[in-house]
Amino acid sequence: MNLMKSLIPAAAIVALPQMGLAQEATGETAQHTQYILTSLLFLVGGFLVFWMAAGFAMLEAGLVRSKNVAMQLIKNMGLFSFAAIMYWLVGFNLMYPGDGWTITGILGAFSPTSLEPVGLEGVETDLSYASVGSDFFFQLMFCATTASIVSGTMAERVKLWPFFFFVIVLTGIIYPIEASWQWGGGWLSEMGFSDFAGSTLVHAAGGFAALAGAIVLGPRIGKYNKDGKVVPIPGSNLALATLGTFILWLGWFGFNGGSQLAMGTIGDMADISRIFANTNMAAAAGAVAALILTQVMYGKVDLTMVLNGALAGLVSITAEPLAPSLFQALIIGAIGGVIVVYTVPLLDKMKIDDVVGAIPVHLIAGFWGTFIVAWTNGDASFVTQIIGFAAIGIFVFVVSFILFSILKATVGLRVGEEEEINGLDMGELGMEAYPEFSKG
Amino acid sequence: MNLMKSLIPAAAIVALPQMGLAQEATGETAQHTQYILTSLLFLVGGFLVFWMAAGFAMLEAGLVRSKNVAMQLIKNMGLFSFAAIMYWLVGFNLMYPGDGWTITGILGAFSPTSLEPVGLEGVETDLSYASVGSDFFFQLMFCATTASIVSGTMAERVKLWPFFFFVIVLTGIIYPIEASWQWGGGWLSEMGFSDFAGSTLVHAAGGFAALAGAIVLGPRIGKYNKDGKVVPIPGSNLALATLGTFILWLGWFGFNGGSQLAMGTIGDMADISRIFANTNMAAAAGAVAALILTQVMYGKVDLTMVLNGALAGLVSITAEPLAPSLFQALIIGAIGGVIVVYTVPLLDKMKIDDVVGAIPVHLIAGFWGTFIVAWTNGDASFVTQIIGFAAIGIFVFVVSFILFSILKATVGLRVGEEEEINGLDMGELGMEAYPEFSKG
Amino acid sequence: MNLMKSLIPAAAIVALPQMGLAQEATGETAQHTQYILTSLLFLVGGFLVFWMAAGFAMLEAGLVRSKNVAMQLIKNMGLFSFAAIMYWLVGFNLMYPGDGWTITGILGAFSPTSLEPVGLEGVETDLSYASVGSDFFFQLMFCATTASIVSGTMAERVKLWPFFFFVIVLTGIIYPIEASWQWGGGWLSEMGFSDFAGSTLVHAAGGFAALAGAIVLGPRIGKYNKDGKVVPIPGSNLALATLGTFILWLGWFGFNGGSQLAMGTIGDMADISRIFANTNMAAAAGAVAALILTQVMYGKVDLTMVLNGALAGLVSITAEPLAPSLFQALIIGAIGGVIVVYTVPLLDKMKIDDVVGAIPVHLIAGFWGTFIVAWTNGDASFVTQIIGFAAIGIFVFVVSFILFSILKATVGLRVGEEEEINGLDMGELGMEAYPEFSKG
Repeated sequence: MNLMKSLIPAAAIVALPQMGLAQEATGETAQHTQYILTSLLFLVGGFLVFWMAAGFAMLEAGLVRSKNVAMQLIKNMGLFSFAAIMYWLVGFNLMYPGDGWTITGILGAFSPTSLEPVGLEGVETDLSYASVGSDFFFQLMFCATTASIVSGTMAERVKLWPFFFFVIVLTGIIYPIEASWQWGGGWLSEMGFSDFAGSTLVHAAGGFAALAGAIVLGPRIGKYNKDGKVVPIPGSNLALATLGTFILWLGWFGFNGGSQLAMGTIGDMADISRIFANTNMAAAAGAVAALILTQVMYGKVDLTMVLNGALAGLVSITAEPLAPSLFQALIIGAIGGVIVVYTVPLLDKMKIDDVVGAIPVHLIAGFWGTFIVAWTNGDASFVTQIIGFAAIGIFVFVVSFILFSILKATVGLRVGEEEEINGLDMGELGMEAYPEFSKG
Repeated sequence: MNLMKSLIPAAAIVALPQMGLAQEATGETAQHTQYILTSLLFLVGGFLVFWMAAGFAMLEAGLVRSKNVAMQLIKNMGLFSFAAIMYWLVGFNLMYPGDGWTITGILGAFSPTSLEPVGLEGVETDLSYASVGSDFFFQLMFCATTASIVSGTMAERVKLWPFFFFVIVLTGIIYPIEASWQWGGGWLSEMGFSDFAGSTLVHAAGGFAALAGAIVLGPRIGKYNKDGKVVPIPGSNLALATLGTFILWLGWFGFNGGSQLAMGTIGDMADISRIFANTNMAAAAGAVAALILTQVMYGKVDLTMVLNGALAGLVSITAEPLAPSLFQALIIGAIGGVIVVYTVPLLDKMKIDDVVGAIPVHLIAGFWGTFIVAWTNGDASFVTQIIGFAAIGIFVFVVSFILFSILKATVGLRVGEEEEINGLDMGELGMEAYPEFSKG
Repeated sequence: MNLMKSLIPAAAIVALPQMGLAQEATGETAQHTQYILTSLLFLVGGFLVFWMAAGFAMLEAGLVRSKNVAMQLIKNMGLFSFAAIMYWLVGFNLMYPGDGWTITGILGAFSPTSLEPVGLEGVETDLSYASVGSDFFFQLMFCATTASIVSGTMAERVKLWPFFFFVIVLTGIIYPIEASWQWGGGWLSEMGFSDFAGSTLVHAAGGFAALAGAIVLGPRIGKYNKDGKVVPIPGSNLALATLGTFILWLGWFGFNGGSQLAMGTIGDMADISRIFANTNMAAAAGAVAALILTQVMYGKVDLTMVLNGALAGLVSITAEPLAPSLFQALIIGAIGGVIVVYTVPLLDKMKIDDVVGAIPVHLIAGFWGTFIVAWTNGDASFVTQIIGFAAIGIFVFVVSFILFSILKATVGLRVGEEEEINGLDMGELGMEAYPEFSKG
């Protein structure tokens, strides 16, 4: 008995390494589970963001006139495909160079993406994050989203191949470089800039490229008449536009939720849940704000404003979908919706013809979302947020403006006048989206 | 050697607490995994049910005439947004008061929803369920679904803002209260009522609100002519209506599957799998039943009946998607499809004008699904199922009827005659969904 | 002290069984986690493949003339529903007989599918795979996909019920038998044939059935005029067709990713990630190839070719989405896109009228994808790939051809001439998809 007792502490001592082993086993399981779950987050988040490509296609196809619908569809299908190839060929490693920066913090690495071997065989895998394939898949979708934003603004007048050429540069070079400054661990992240899921890096960047394009391209024929009045050009299919908005809303759960970049702990899971709830709240608040405001301002509710209000709410919450309370998310999203209602006519006053309202939604609400991070996230400062936004805005706008100008001066950026009047579908493609339905 | 042997039991004894620790570690991991997986179920299930909002929008936009499409789109986008805000402001805690009932088992708590802190820091978390954010996100979608059901029935004649006012009360007050009686642990659940995913709580409740609305509102101009004959008013876009049905079918996997409310054990996972398989089977059986029955009865297959047959199959299996075998699911769903084919004309005989057939699909098939639970689930009784259905039906119908009547008597519920004939899109919104396509 | 030291090895020894227990606990947890995660893969993969049914419906509804749209919608909704019932009634056990082959390796078992009991209670469960319900749900979707492929080719002239009769035999008998040869562990898998996710088993099989149907049915009136010239018959709604393509692309992540059939280890997860990335790359490459090739060949980009190019890229990578590098996936997919551009006109030269281009996309690109497996997967041989493809092709084509011929000779397979000219919607259904829009 006495001996037994005396053994207990001894056994307890020897038990420590044992426990160590047991904990190691458990720890390995936990690490594997974390690797699996975070990869799963990227795949599910990734397919949701992929779905946003369809959302942009439907939104834009619904908001252009029927004579330009096929063109808009082909641009959206094509831009995603070019983005997928370019992001593999150069984008991913340019954006995430790891230790391989060409110019530290400013310019990443130039090389195509390689995935891990099948079954992870014969490779030392870092289990603290996620599979390279899932990471690449997820990040690629963000790159494509940036390009989707541009196509809406420049609709109904831009030539097909010059547009695709711009998309290739945007998705292969411009986006990966500016995104590397923050998400690749570059100079902006060093400075303390904060952009959780890309109000600036994705949405405002797309918006700045769109703005450059709209300026270089000029407005559609007939949009602004000789008296300086704005002529409304209604979209041909608001059911499609609404479907597109619902698709984008759905995809945004993956966009923001996946940007937590981890799902292996209860804390991460609770955070992803917060993000889902806040993202939904901001979208709803943006829609309701636009609903009420258009009723008050115009005496009639405007469906396209409501759709863009929801999208502006989503863009606004994207820079910080985690830190806000649900009430703060409501405020942030609602102000996003208000911004759209006020800035859509403002843009028209400046004779910048943005066919689908992408600049108010993605650029201006993107600024709002980026700026207001400092309200809910103690690690961010208003000044740094403005600097980061400005840096990316200037870079993307200037490079895009130069590129569009070169395209304009060389191969031409805009279709001929007759073609524009008759519709790009017959002119550029020789086909119609709705050949059996008469046009108004 | 002898000493060594004698040590073994001693070590074995001291090993027990050790094992305890190891098991604790394993147990903690298991509990964390369970928390993560159940939260994941709610997020995936939740985004699928969110997607149903788009399904209702497309279904309804496809089944109304083109002159009312924009209005139907805006109502669906708006009702979801109002529901999202109201469910946060009051609905969630009214429905799930925990220990904080205002009147025990009958009336929940009045307070906005708060999420867990970021990273779960500084908070004691109950790891046996799921994150509050994921739970809120999931449950919110059910609340919004209830409102979506109402908008279809009342289409083509209801005013925008009175409809939204009703939605606000429905999603903030009516639905949370009746749902608390069962899912919040209220008096109906105490009584032994059984409604797994909401044949009664969501679908029939939405159907009863729709019925009250249809009665107070009256039928569309021209639906029933002077001879008492029913004039068919075909939907403007059956491709959209079919898309909407496919979307709803997809979303229903989240609706029913997520209602398992747990994914952390093999038993729960196998159950969710059963639910997916049964849900799909019931939908298929409902569609096939309507397909065959319309062929037999009318000599021609009716697409809208087939769509509604699939939806009725889905509603029918929703009260108990777990217990039935696949064959039982087939029977339950098929009878749901039969119900729709027989009750759509019945409603017309009563001159209740239900534009999309939501009352047969959600209320009547909802009753069937609720009633038949007692066939496959031994814990349920037919009598209790009828009592529960009646209680919720009476409550929702009476409150909705009063509310609609007040709206009718004060601000008015229905648009003017001229506006109805010309279409609500031009009258209420000043825009058209398909401005370029000529109307028939 | 000395005693203590001497105890250490003793305790270490006794610790071994302890560790065994601890490891067992950990091992059980790991096995449960694996069972849960693989089942989850099947459910998420399954709902994504379900979504492809909507994709085919939209693609086909968009590519037929408006007078046949309702018919195409009802065929897609109906075929999925019949497939769901038939796969339960006989298909699943015919395809996966386990040890219960009727003729070993050639003909499976005839019995309906039973799921595991609720909560897995009272049943010995094999935890090394996934829940039966999730497996059934996932595999059912592949069966339905095969039928979806047929409906597009035979559009605009086939009678409704004879088509459904064929679908019943295809999904209940033909597909399960040929698929059992490979995935059920039958003679083709014994031979070393390799078809990861079904380039041959699903896509080419559907394509061969479609080819048989197109030959027996004959071309649409007016498709080939008296001079032997091909008359283009443009689809009525390219926005829908594009939406359908995006839906299919999205669903394909589940199609190929889920076919990994395991998600419980880091190796499996990394593999699923590879598959997602490769699938996306092949689709993008197929679209870009068709984009460039139609521009070069015709001087104008062709949207329907781009859509079919993306789909052909997807079909091409389906036989082996895991082994290729991203660059190899690009090559495989791009050649798929090229195949479509060249074989669509080829088929027209042979006066085989394939309304949506399903034969080039699913059969011919399906052959390409199956053949090229031997390039990237060292376990496959070109010869065996050709033999497997031929075996399934001959079986499906011959049985389908006989079945269609019998239907033609008895109940008739094709609608009357007048009905075809006026549209099947009015003739067979007595309704229109777009009743308010004038036809061209």
